[in-house]
Amino acid sequence: MASDLRKDPVTDRWVLIAPDRGARPSDFLVETQPPSQRVCPFCPGNEAMTPPPIQEVEGADGRWAVRVIPNRYPAVQVEVPLQREAVGIYDRISGFGAHEVVVETPRHDLSLWELGDEDRARVLGVYRDRLADLGNDRRLRWAMVFKNRGAQAGATLQHEHSQLVALPRVPREARERWEGARSHFRRKERCVYCDVIAAETKEGVRVVEESRFFVAFCPYASRAPFETWILPKGHASHYTLVTQEDLRDLSRLLGSVLRRMDGALEKPAVNFMLHSAPLQEHESPAFHWHLEIVPATQRIGGFEWGSGFFINPTPPEDAAAFLREFA
Amino acid sequence: MASDLRKDPVTDRWVLIAPDRGARPSDFLVETQPPSQRVCPFCPGNEAMTPPPIQEVEGADGRWAVRVIPNRYPAVQVEVPLQREAVGIYDRISGFGAHEVVVETPRHDLSLWELGDEDRARVLGVYRDRLADLGNDRRLRWAMVFKNRGAQAGATLQHEHSQLVALPRVPREARERWEGARSHFRRKERCVYCDVIAAETKEGVRVVEESRFFVAFCPYASRAPFETWILPKGHASHYTLVTQEDLRDLSRLLGSVLRRMDGALEKPAVNFMLHSAPLQEHESPAFHWHLEIVPATQRIGGFEWGSGFFINPTPPEDAAAFLREFA
Repeated sequence: MASDLRKDPVTDRWVLIAPDRGARPSDFLVETQPPSQRVCPFCPGNEAMTPPPIQEVEGADGRWAVRVIPNRYPAVQVEVPLQREAVGIYDRISGFGAHEVVVETPRHDLSLWELGDEDRARVLGVYRDRLADLGNDRRLRWAMVFKNRGAQAGATLQHEHSQLVALPRVPREARERWEGARSHFRRKERCVYCDVIAAETKEGVRVVEESRFFVAFCPYASRAPFETWILPKGHASHYTLVTQEDLRDLSRLLGSVLRRMDGALEKPAVNFMLHSAPLQEHESPAFHWHLEIVPATQRIGGFEWGSGFFINPTPPEDAAAFLREFA
Repeated sequence: MASDLRKDPVTDRWVLIAPDRGARPSDFLVETQPPSQRVCPFCPGNEAMTPPPIQEVEGADGRWAVRVIPNRYPAVQVEVPLQREAVGIYDRISGFGAHEVVVETPRHDLSLWELGDEDRARVLGVYRDRLADLGNDRRLRWAMVFKNRGAQAGATLQHEHSQLVALPRVPREARERWEGARSHFRRKERCVYCDVIAAETKEGVRVVEESRFFVAFCPYASRAPFETWILPKGHASHYTLVTQEDLRDLSRLLGSVLRRMDGALEKPAVNFMLHSAPLQEHESPAFHWHLEIVPATQRIGGFEWGSGFFINPTPPEDAAAFLREFA
């Protein structure tokens, strides 16, 4: 059964109803399932368990080092025709899009955290390649690379991987970022993220670490304890524009930040999200790509559900100071 | 240390930084703590463990049956002066507001589900009283009653209770509901929720149960498996306008819906949120108060964090059919 995007009739909230992803109601009872101990479909030798790869990158040993495959339980599919329709009083879009999995390493036992800088840079390069490739499909307007690490962050497989979803519309959160940045630019003729970088690096209290080309800090309005963002210091709207030199530097900084989190929070479950400009947009002086890292330490309660507000018990100034201690 | 509301500089997302609520970073490591087995501050005889009550309602035995107290770890406080200020390039509002706890029953072992219809109606009446009372403070623009049942839904105490937060601004989700309903009314001169009720009761596939004055259904764009909404069939913008007759009928239906969820999902953790019109607004032909019930069966993963989209693996039509089986 194909998935569909359904719009809430009151707000502009879309929901992806993806019945392929779970079968019976009982599947949703057990909350934090231990990662499966069965045969790992992402390990070398088990390639036949997954659909044919979309991209493979060779390592020094001539075997694959990073492997991109279609998600076996896709939330959206490119095979579905893009169709917008009214269903009675409601609005629906067919489940058209792309849902890919990036297997980040052949090693079942290594995390993205523990990979060497070169290996992690290779993964970051694959993110760039995939975003660039998906942008060639003019029907796709938005894509995001994200990672769920650990069962508490939503991961169902232990072998280290990230995911990529591309959709025919820009979802609410992404549109608010894009429009918010453009609104700031219209008023001030400056990139709001560049303003934030200038303020944060000057003040320093929320900075976790700086590298040559990037800065990592806990944002002023952190939604969750130890939320950390990484931004390129130089203005760039599209992640697809990163150079190999950028990627090497980003890899080193990202590894360091993630290891700080592991030290500070005892290997927490983590989500990270890579936010680039919408796919079909030209280079923009208003938007600035960035990586948001959120340890999955908190539950979404009724207050968050109903208000869209987050309650964060750890001031980002404290979180940054604590993370700085774990070099 | 008082809390503050901080605005994300790009989007209109506000975050409540509430450092009183948790002390050390290690407090956020353990995710699903078992409910505390120590002395329960909500049980009769332990009233001295909580601040003095804001409201108490007597039961037939002359003792308190429902008790409203200030939250001991408040996210916001009425004692804090309401203050809006710039902090460098950022925007901040002081942590002014109200945060109350409704102890729903003196019985430690009973859930709101298991209370008698009269007892549950008394709790629903207290929600009305508190919303009406908080509306008298003109600085408060919005309030929501919500419930986190079970550790997976964010509860930290086992004794059955709900919470109430009132704020000096209407948060994003609530504003989108309010503005969305008003936009629909401007175009069509009809309440969008009334339209939804008419469509749902006519089609029937997503209806869980109907009572004399209320209808419970799984919404077309359900964010989570088994999400269920209860709405009054007659138009009413403010929950504060409910009559005793309404409350008796709502109590019966709510009890039935919650017991269906317990049957279908084996006593899931649950969040519910009571959405009434913003506090200082007059009666409105555009907005319709409602109760949203969301079983806490899902994790928020990177996709949801980054997009604001929810992926729901259970079509609401299937969820409603399943819930209907558990009378």
